[in-house]
Amino acid sequence: MAAEIAQQPDVLANQLAVAHGHIQKVARRLQELAPRFVVLAARGTSDHAALFAKYLIEVKLGLPCGLASPSTLTGYHARPALEQVLWVSVSQSGASPDLVESARTAAARGALTLAVTNDPGSPLADASDLHIDVLAGPELSVAATKTYTAQLQALWLLVDAWSGGRAEGVADVPAAIRRVLDEPDLDGLAARYRFVDRIVTVGRGFSYPTARESALKLMETSYLSANAFSGADLLHGPLAMIDEDRPVVVCAPSGVGGDLLRPVLARLRDRGADTCLIGADELAAEYQVTAHVPTPDVEESLAPIVQIVPLQQLAHHLAVARHRDPDQPRGLSKVTETR
Amino acid sequence: MAAEIAQQPDVLANQLAVAHGHIQKVARRLQELAPRFVVLAARGTSDHAALFAKYLIEVKLGLPCGLASPSTLTGYHARPALEQVLWVSVSQSGASPDLVESARTAAARGALTLAVTNDPGSPLADASDLHIDVLAGPELSVAATKTYTAQLQALWLLVDAWSGGRAEGVADVPAAIRRVLDEPDLDGLAARYRFVDRIVTVGRGFSYPTARESALKLMETSYLSANAFSGADLLHGPLAMIDEDRPVVVCAPSGVGGDLLRPVLARLRDRGADTCLIGADELAAEYQVTAHVPTPDVEESLAPIVQIVPLQQLAHHLAVARHRDPDQPRGLSKVTETR
Repeated sequence: MAAEIAQQPDVLANQLAVAHGHIQKVARRLQELAPRFVVLAARGTSDHAALFAKYLIEVKLGLPCGLASPSTLTGYHARPALEQVLWVSVSQSGASPDLVESARTAAARGALTLAVTNDPGSPLADASDLHIDVLAGPELSVAATKTYTAQLQALWLLVDAWSGGRAEGVADVPAAIRRVLDEPDLDGLAARYRFVDRIVTVGRGFSYPTARESALKLMETSYLSANAFSGADLLHGPLAMIDEDRPVVVCAPSGVGGDLLRPVLARLRDRGADTCLIGADELAAEYQVTAHVPTPDVEESLAPIVQIVPLQQLAHHLAVARHRDPDQPRGLSKVTETR
Repeated sequence: MAAEIAQQPDVLANQLAVAHGHIQKVARRLQELAPRFVVLAARGTSDHAALFAKYLIEVKLGLPCGLASPSTLTGYHARPALEQVLWVSVSQSGASPDLVESARTAAARGALTLAVTNDPGSPLADASDLHIDVLAGPELSVAATKTYTAQLQALWLLVDAWSGGRAEGVADVPAAIRRVLDEPDLDGLAARYRFVDRIVTVGRGFSYPTARESALKLMETSYLSANAFSGADLLHGPLAMIDEDRPVVVCAPSGVGGDLLRPVLARLRDRGADTCLIGADELAAEYQVTAHVPTPDVEESLAPIVQIVPLQQLAHHLAVARHRDPDQPRGLSKVTETR
């Protein structure tokens, strides 16, 4: 897991150099077909990449977009009308039978299907009209890291090209991640959280997928009870469980997402919560957070690719400190097959 | 909270008698307008009612459907193309500014807007083209209970009428809930969980919203760390954190949803998890669960209205046993306003 976390700058730089042209071609196909609506289907870590894509598609393309509930197709045999709908499956392995069956059903119901995977020879790639290979290279650790950031960047490149953008700012991402990896200050944070068994992660807008993915990493490598919330949903109930013994990690890019988190940071401060802020220097001072992990400034929609990295490292450090094997979490295998 | 839990049979019977005619009229409007797609916008408990409606709409109507990310409209000022889209806002109070602003923006972008609230005089009802009053009566406890089941039944009636159904089976729901309330055996379960601080709830398909809503109830009344998963997503990572010290509650209707949970129950049994099954008698024996709360059999899509009730009672019992005030969770107020 540590090795694969460290490979991310090279993986992303390589994807930019090698895959960008193909992604632009796929984007042109999508421009021609002009779908009226997008459905994203995924599981686990890939579902957080899909959620990131949902924000991108809604904000940058102005297209309505939804996350699929695959069981409606595979279990309840729903037969939705999907003409002029783009069905995007996101999966590292491209092997989970529910995603393959959903993509086949979607195609039979009129959808254009696109698979984003790390294996061009996978059943999902084979079952879909279009395919994007995220080119992360073999990932051996069960806890996905480099395939996640490679999915995020590939989806960002796709939506950027589709919306007529010129990939502005994305070339800075590999170097920004390298700077995160070169800052060893996370050891202190891992030490602080050494004996924690319950933690809450929070994001809003583009940073909400980061909150979800970091909670999953902490659950699967260190077996913490990690609850992820959008800042708005936290205030609609779960805030009650926050107290001085349950630390909170807030993922906040500078920009709109950070501003939307201001009322959340104020409520957390008022409740005496132990809050660690990832990113957004200006918010750290203003809300007197307990700990702060600065991340290099990149454009807000690119920040999730950078801000997940210190949280991947935190999950790894915590697992090692607890004598867990982050490469082989108990009860899991690398390719999960659900129906 | 206890009083409002107990009112549910009467609330639901009254809604059937008083509101069904109006809901059928709304359904006829939707049939005429024939939306190509549905977006559901909600927060907190109401978001779980929205998720239930998503399954209904996909399975019974064959319409693609997505849950809104309100911040894309209110924070990032996305301007999606929403012609021939139905935008459904679900909110108990109808007062949260982000939902009101989202509904206004959706209408301005061409959507037909429908609000489902417990207050016909609310800003959300006022901002929407159509309104359904769930008629739950005043709800004083901060933890929503009767407004939730009233939302579920109103949404079920709407989708049933829209799909040309004849409301088959729904008349049995109030009596089924009365039977659940008359079974006092939950005291034993509350005693077993008295000292638990981490719990996992699981559902699949129609029962996934029940898992989500029961986790929220346990978080906001007893301050447990409760993680809710769809059975498929549990196997894609979080399963690693399940051990003999972290109990699991599985919500399983008889039918497709219960069958989809079989591989999950098998994995939980193999890991030695302490599993409590809600519903589906036949699965309880087969997978040797630790505890079982039978619920009266109703049609699978109606089961969520019945199966949440023992879990509401569990949340209440646990809060009282821990000397928490379930009517006034710390840090919360009845109407949450987020932007």
